Amino acid sequence: MTGVVTAQSPWKRAIERGEQRAVKRDAVLRAAAQLFNEFGYHATSLEMVAERLRVTKPTLYYYVRNKEEILFECVRLGLELLREAIAEAAASGGTTVDKLKAAMHEYALIVTRDYGMCLIRVGEDPLAPAGRRELRRLKAELDHEFRALIEQGIAEGELAPCDPKLAAFTLAGALSWIGRWYDPEGPLDAQAVVEQSTAILLRGLLARPHSRHEASAA
Amino acid sequence: MTGVVTAQSPWKRAIERGEQRAVKRDAVLRAAAQLFNEFGYHATSLEMVAERLRVTKPTLYYYVRNKEEILFECVRLGLELLREAIAEAAASGGTTVDKLKAAMHEYALIVTRDYGMCLIRVGEDPLAPAGRRELRRLKAELDHEFRALIEQGIAEGELAPCDPKLAAFTLAGALSWIGRWYDPEGPLDAQAVVEQSTAILLRGLLARPHSRHEASAA
Repeated sequence: MTGVVTAQSPWKRAIERGEQRAVKRDAVLRAAAQLFNEFGYHATSLEMVAERLRVTKPTLYYYVRNKEEILFECVRLGLELLREAIAEAAASGGTTVDKLKAAMHEYALIVTRDYGMCLIRVGEDPLAPAGRRELRRLKAELDHEFRALIEQGIAEGELAPCDPKLAAFTLAGALSWIGRWYDPEGPLDAQAVVEQSTAILLRGLLARPHSRHEASAA
Repeated sequence: MTGVVTAQSPWKRAIERGEQRAVKRDAVLRAAAQLFNEFGYHATSLEMVAERLRVTKPTLYYYVRNKEEILFECVRLGLELLREAIAEAAASGGTTVDKLKAAMHEYALIVTRDYGMCLIRVGEDPLAPAGRRELRRLKAELDHEFRALIEQGIAEGELAPCDPKLAAFTLAGALSWIGRWYDPEGPLDAQAVVEQSTAILLRGLLARPHSRHEASAA
């Protein structure tokens, strides 16, 4: 996964030979994710993906089999990015609250970007049962990691007693929703949106007010 | 709108003549909403709606023109229910925090039911531009009412200073998400889910801890 490639056509410039296929495949997936996010899965055709990359439709088939495979991969990548971010936050130094805050922050930023947004806006629903099952399994893992952090915070007395399962759903829900309405071309800055939402949610979970976790004034 | 009619076929029993058409139309919309929520909009056909109501497909055309009109109406009804609930909460007695709490509570309950769930799970995206625009206008009104309550709470010093627009999005997001994952046939009780999510979110907004708004222990 090369996180920095935008949907500009990589056919235009020379790329180190060995990485060429992976980079181009990522460009196909990313262009498709952007189109899915903008027009919806059903309204997006492979012709539109090819056009955005200024290649022919047959060229796409060198990298992907069909639209369903593209969606599966986009959603899988979105889930993978979230899983990595939460695992990294959980493994970092600091208190459980620091870890939870970092995990929430990364989660929210990821859903404002191509693959994360595709996970939220389209998701696994249009896929056949086998693909749906696989992606739901990954989602459940993710949910489990969030819940474990909350359970730990409650056990340590840092978070107020609550049902960790419902609290994890509430957090993931509020953060996921950002990916549903956030417009990368719009006037709001992703970072500001994420800071504010995370602050409100974290305050809601804390056992006692804690100045450094306070929501910042508008 | 008759809120209590389930998707059992109303053709089976006698109904007061004058209301008959409205009741049957609502049954068509409600059955369709349930199918959209379960299988997705694109995978649901008018044949499936007819079958669930044990009528023929041509019978449906007496009440609705096509699948797109059905979705428009389901989403419009979902938005209308939310708008009514928030307006009612805002007009009720009590403090601004009481009103906000009541509005959040009702919002969350509505998205666990047929039309509210359809608004969240399917939404206006599959519709043609004119329908989409109309529904987005209704959504913006709803958002405005939530925001007004938050602004009032901040002005009164009951809520901590924050960006009311982002706070409204965070609330609506977390509450909407309940409609995305909540399974009416599942083991969780809607009321418990709603209580817990509302408590966490409200604590996150409050200017100071307030025992009667605390999240209840698990």
